[in-house]
Amino acid sequence: MTKITMIGAGNLATHLCRALINSGHEIVQIYSRTIESASTLAKEINVPYTTDTKAIKSSDLAIIAVNDDSIQDIEKHIGFPKVHTSGTKPLSTLNGKNIGVFYPLQTFNKNIDVNFKSIPVCVESSNSDLLQTLKNLAVSISDKAVELNSEQRKNLHLAAVISCNFSNMLYRLSEEVCQKEGIPFDILQPLILETAQKIKHTSPSLAQTGPAKRGDFETIEKHLMLLKNDEEKKEIYQLLTASIKKRR
Amino acid sequence: MTKITMIGAGNLATHLCRALINSGHEIVQIYSRTIESASTLAKEINVPYTTDTKAIKSSDLAIIAVNDDSIQDIEKHIGFPKVHTSGTKPLSTLNGKNIGVFYPLQTFNKNIDVNFKSIPVCVESSNSDLLQTLKNLAVSISDKAVELNSEQRKNLHLAAVISCNFSNMLYRLSEEVCQKEGIPFDILQPLILETAQKIKHTSPSLAQTGPAKRGDFETIEKHLMLLKNDEEKKEIYQLLTASIKKRR
Repeated sequence: MTKITMIGAGNLATHLCRALINSGHEIVQIYSRTIESASTLAKEINVPYTTDTKAIKSSDLAIIAVNDDSIQDIEKHIGFPKVHTSGTKPLSTLNGKNIGVFYPLQTFNKNIDVNFKSIPVCVESSNSDLLQTLKNLAVSISDKAVELNSEQRKNLHLAAVISCNFSNMLYRLSEEVCQKEGIPFDILQPLILETAQKIKHTSPSLAQTGPAKRGDFETIEKHLMLLKNDEEKKEIYQLLTASIKKRR
Repeated sequence: MTKITMIGAGNLATHLCRALINSGHEIVQIYSRTIESASTLAKEINVPYTTDTKAIKSSDLAIIAVNDDSIQDIEKHIGFPKVHTSGTKPLSTLNGKNIGVFYPLQTFNKNIDVNFKSIPVCVESSNSDLLQTLKNLAVSISDKAVELNSEQRKNLHLAAVISCNFSNMLYRLSEEVCQKEGIPFDILQPLILETAQKIKHTSPSLAQTGPAKRGDFETIEKHLMLLKNDEEKKEIYQLLTASIKKRR
């Protein structure tokens, strides 16, 4: 059991508090700049809160779950072991010897319940005792704990943007194609889900299908004709088709 | 119950035969150009087969499940009601009055079992009796039957390439980023799956997250720095980031 001070009361802090308590850890206090979010979360999980940096309670570990840009402002008020939760900020964003990173790889929405077990947690620390604490904490709430250094974590975040944020952008482009033609977009959902599920057991390089993979240039030409008045979609189509062709 | 002649013995023909038989329809014969695939499928489902176009047995409906380029070669030998199963070929690829399209929107792999119920089937015919037959057939094997004209079907196919084939290409790019840095790619799978699942209940335009959506230019700049020696990925990153920004 680890005694934790939670710094922040947003989406990530909320989901982390719930998961930590469910796994038998103790949240000793919530700190947040704004009284409203601090009190909401504190009330939900029945722990004290503060909005005063001088009143932050010491514990085994402070988890700093605030916006990337606010980490340095708050961390200087914390003199006991502390971790941040950012995908992009290096370990060196924190000062002191008892510092680390505890980064759950997921996008959170405060009101949608999350099964934390399926969310990988990436940990880092140059202090071996703290690293062990973080690993123990990670495996207690998640099925997958991975030790990554700051450079790897930054690249993992980039990879997540490419595979998730950008995929969602492709869903949007394809929804636009459907809307223009009066096609119900939900027809595509089973195929989209199947595409994401397939790579659970197969490398995406083996899972590739479609006209570019087959070298079906007639279909590619037809698609480009359909997009002839839409420069943006045409450019994206050509670029991704070229990437697939290059790797055939 | 519909009596069906199956033209073709590939992935789609195989899955269609299984689903049709499970739903109480009768396959009266398999036709394939190659004796090997014809006999394999015929044996599995215990029906006669032929490789001779002159010996194709008449039935309520011929389902032509062959490569797009082979449809016209085979369809001229069929004088009874017939449909093709292509996403990109128009209805007019077939000759005669009793013609239609029966297009299941999915990628098939012969050896992986498919739950046909979840696969949308798009139907088209200018013959109202045949259209009704196709609708009945579609709802008997699938939870979702949609009537689309040839222009819509062509656009749906384009939308599927954008949202599925291209998403998979993004998974590959992100796998490459991970491999380069020694990050296990499977860390990303929960987030990829979550991204695809989210749009079951939310329009992808509302589901968008990430630095481009937030206007987090510092993170975007960092990502571009990581990609500075990889022109291909940088170009794709910039193009999709611009698309997200445009729609903020």
